[in-house]
Amino acid sequence: MKNRQPTDAPVLRRILLVIAYDGSNYCGWQVQPNGVSIQSVLQRAIEDLVGEPVMLTGASRTDSGVHALGQVAVFDTHMSIPEDRFAMALNQRLPKDIVIQKSVEVALNFHPRYQKVSKTYEYKILNRRIPLPCQRLYSYFVPQRLDLEAMRQGAAYICGTHDFKNFASTKTSVKDTVRTVYDLKLEKEGDMITLTIRGDGFLYNMVRIIAGALLKVGFRQKSPEYIREVLESSQRLIPGPTAPAHGLTLVEICYKEGLKKP
Amino acid sequence: MKNRQPTDAPVLRRILLVIAYDGSNYCGWQVQPNGVSIQSVLQRAIEDLVGEPVMLTGASRTDSGVHALGQVAVFDTHMSIPEDRFAMALNQRLPKDIVIQKSVEVALNFHPRYQKVSKTYEYKILNRRIPLPCQRLYSYFVPQRLDLEAMRQGAAYICGTHDFKNFASTKTSVKDTVRTVYDLKLEKEGDMITLTIRGDGFLYNMVRIIAGALLKVGFRQKSPEYIREVLESSQRLIPGPTAPAHGLTLVEICYKEGLKKP
Repeated sequence: MKNRQPTDAPVLRRILLVIAYDGSNYCGWQVQPNGVSIQSVLQRAIEDLVGEPVMLTGASRTDSGVHALGQVAVFDTHMSIPEDRFAMALNQRLPKDIVIQKSVEVALNFHPRYQKVSKTYEYKILNRRIPLPCQRLYSYFVPQRLDLEAMRQGAAYICGTHDFKNFASTKTSVKDTVRTVYDLKLEKEGDMITLTIRGDGFLYNMVRIIAGALLKVGFRQKSPEYIREVLESSQRLIPGPTAPAHGLTLVEICYKEGLKKP
Repeated sequence: MKNRQPTDAPVLRRILLVIAYDGSNYCGWQVQPNGVSIQSVLQRAIEDLVGEPVMLTGASRTDSGVHALGQVAVFDTHMSIPEDRFAMALNQRLPKDIVIQKSVEVALNFHPRYQKVSKTYEYKILNRRIPLPCQRLYSYFVPQRLDLEAMRQGAAYICGTHDFKNFASTKTSVKDTVRTVYDLKLEKEGDMITLTIRGDGFLYNMVRIIAGALLKVGFRQKSPEYIREVLESSQRLIPGPTAPAHGLTLVEICYKEGLKKP
């Protein structure tokens, strides 16, 4: 006689979470030797809910201090509650600085990193003479005058498909440094400048290095054409200081083939 | 021979500070038996700078969790640095959640509370299905549907000179509860509703009680006319729950006679 599982045995499902967080009090998304990571807090909340060990795989490894409105992560579970209930049930178990925005079931072979995506990041610059306390954790304070028009001219060179090797941290290990930036906007509202960038993927620290390079143009230390020079240089050319983490927010990840259900 | 002071003895000056703070980590403006107050942290920083004991008098006693962009306070000192340098020198001694925006010398008889003023407060309501972590300390999260038009109709009754006794905390001790509200706006941008109110003064918890009453109208638990009923009632009528402190920001205090220098 064959040892068969009963037909009502719980099936394995892959659950995708869209996660917003305030990164101020964490060492980043990924589990680190020191400091509490968003991934570890979330993983514990999931295991507490589903009552089985889970592996949580995120789409982006955000650094310490970086925020998210739409981080994406998946885990597998045998729990059989409706897909949208995971969000609610997890939010009851999570601290207030991590909030699941949405939960959906996806195909078991769906991988948040190897699927084709467009990602959107925002980098905020508070440009006024004196800092504002309530903005200190969510924007980079820059008291110097900025030439926004020059920054926009520089930003235009970033758009398109380029080898962004000079816009990646030297700590990066990836071989293929070609990426496509679909769109880069610089908008100003009151004292706040928001850089919004959308692309098919970003190298390690790429958005913060782009923000730093555009600030150099904004300070008129470099001309807008400097951005093109750095892009086109076959030498390693460091475009400027990396802008600090706390100005950065992972806004959205769109999966090009959508979120196919099983 | 008379015991005269030398003519170059430092003169007493009254310095006015415009202060912005993130109230999240404080027990409010005023010194309290338990918890750290903004006033005490600021007073210590001033004494450390000027090297003499000071009395710091604030214009508004903001509650725990309430934020400020333009709190006003004064102190007297013999220190003779230029008036605008106090701001810079104090910011070097203050934590990042308290930032002096401006310092000016005023007349020695200037009192931040007994001078005629107009004060502006903002109350922020995040109105969406799921909370946003980076907004959690700076807005009141309300997931229910809100009838903004009804709230605006209710808000119109608040404007003008009224006895606001029913819009004050029962803990208040003031006798004269008549105040003038010059302006009350309700604006929506994305998910964020901002109530901006300007008046010649506000009773204890008045803005938060007004926000709570308008939310009751927004939920359609009460009609807009309910606001008028509460205002006109000679009985003690409690208009609804007081909206929580962390949605509130003291935006600006304008002194009608200006800041007269000595």
